[in-house]
Amino acid sequence: MSSMKHIEVIAFDADDTLWHNESLFTMTQDKYKSLLAGYHTPEWIESRLFDTETENIQHFGYGVKGFTLSMIETAIELSEGRITGAEIYQIIEFAKEMLKSPIELLDGVQETIEELSQTHDLMIITKGDLFDQESKIARSGLADFFSKIEIVKEKDDEVYRRILSRYGIEKEKFAMVGNALKSDILPVLRLGATAVHIPYHTTWAREIVAEDELENYSFVQLKGMRGLAELFR
Amino acid sequence: MSSMKHIEVIAFDADDTLWHNESLFTMTQDKYKSLLAGYHTPEWIESRLFDTETENIQHFGYGVKGFTLSMIETAIELSEGRITGAEIYQIIEFAKEMLKSPIELLDGVQETIEELSQTHDLMIITKGDLFDQESKIARSGLADFFSKIEIVKEKDDEVYRRILSRYGIEKEKFAMVGNALKSDILPVLRLGATAVHIPYHTTWAREIVAEDELENYSFVQLKGMRGLAELFR
Repeated sequence: MSSMKHIEVIAFDADDTLWHNESLFTMTQDKYKSLLAGYHTPEWIESRLFDTETENIQHFGYGVKGFTLSMIETAIELSEGRITGAEIYQIIEFAKEMLKSPIELLDGVQETIEELSQTHDLMIITKGDLFDQESKIARSGLADFFSKIEIVKEKDDEVYRRILSRYGIEKEKFAMVGNALKSDILPVLRLGATAVHIPYHTTWAREIVAEDELENYSFVQLKGMRGLAELFR
Repeated sequence: MSSMKHIEVIAFDADDTLWHNESLFTMTQDKYKSLLAGYHTPEWIESRLFDTETENIQHFGYGVKGFTLSMIETAIELSEGRITGAEIYQIIEFAKEMLKSPIELLDGVQETIEELSQTHDLMIITKGDLFDQESKIARSGLADFFSKIEIVKEKDDEVYRRILSRYGIEKEKFAMVGNALKSDILPVLRLGATAVHIPYHTTWAREIVAEDELENYSFVQLKGMRGLAELFR
């Protein structure tokens, strides 16, 4: 791990690092399971939805719209076509609610970003749906603190390498802060840059990585955003 | 209009400029109207779908996934909820077919891009869904000819200004090539840069602009991609 003293550019993941996101999906899944309670058990619905989502990522990528299409497809399948138009309409309403729900910043984010923006060059590197992410960044009220915003399809080694190269950022001067070991931490450590892990209370099943992949690397884990400014001071 | 001799960077719109796209939506709409023929006339279905799409752009933005959610919502509304699960399943299948359909380059695109890439710095500036557009660019086989690819939410004056500024491109050296007067031509002309209009045989209703907005500007219109290399030679 490079010394934190040399860090000039700090990049942040957005969903579940700067603001709550997974909890919105969890809440929507709960509403979805209630809506379909007449057809199947909550466990079965959740497991079928997960399978449909996994299959559909190749078509739809990440984000609310793809998630919604997967909810609709799953509802048709597990009701064997008996799902009603009114019920599917409800699922589309879930999507619209998610897309316009207020952005709830995580504890300490506002102050930390404000403080760090005075001493460091800050950027956002997030994956997901372009329209959706841009809208969330705008609604967060934080956009002005970040000099660069990168919305990418996947966050792997190659994507980080390309971003550092595009902006001429040396890896010794770059730190990534995020909640997802697979997308935010591991690829950055593999490049030889610095990563700070701030876990979120729920982890999306698709982002879970084997612990032993992490064994060969050094990185900082913080229990929350408070403490980050001190780390880079 | 600046002289074409000073142009160093040529940016291309993608959908309906480099490859067919609107025709895919038109084809899908035809299938959709057949699917719902038992509920309403084709004209009524088309008009209702257009209204739903217009209303939903604020939530879903552009692209296949948002279009599909609008098709589903419209189907439920115009069938007054009588639409069946199997029929909605068909609509989701339409989306998957669209998202994986082969990219069909427009006439002359391959040769023109190859030729221009030897003398000019080429970029793509396209709007739409990130996942969808990246997948199309990859499938087009053209990605290597472009040094920069910008996928944006909207193409307005501000977005073009930001892109030119980010890459330090002088407006006198920049030309935009595209099929949409509203997104590709007018904002670029307003910045004082050069624009080349290559109309596509169908124009998306949302992209139609009043002719009189164009009266104060000079720009080139070509009937197809052939002729473009000569223009910049």
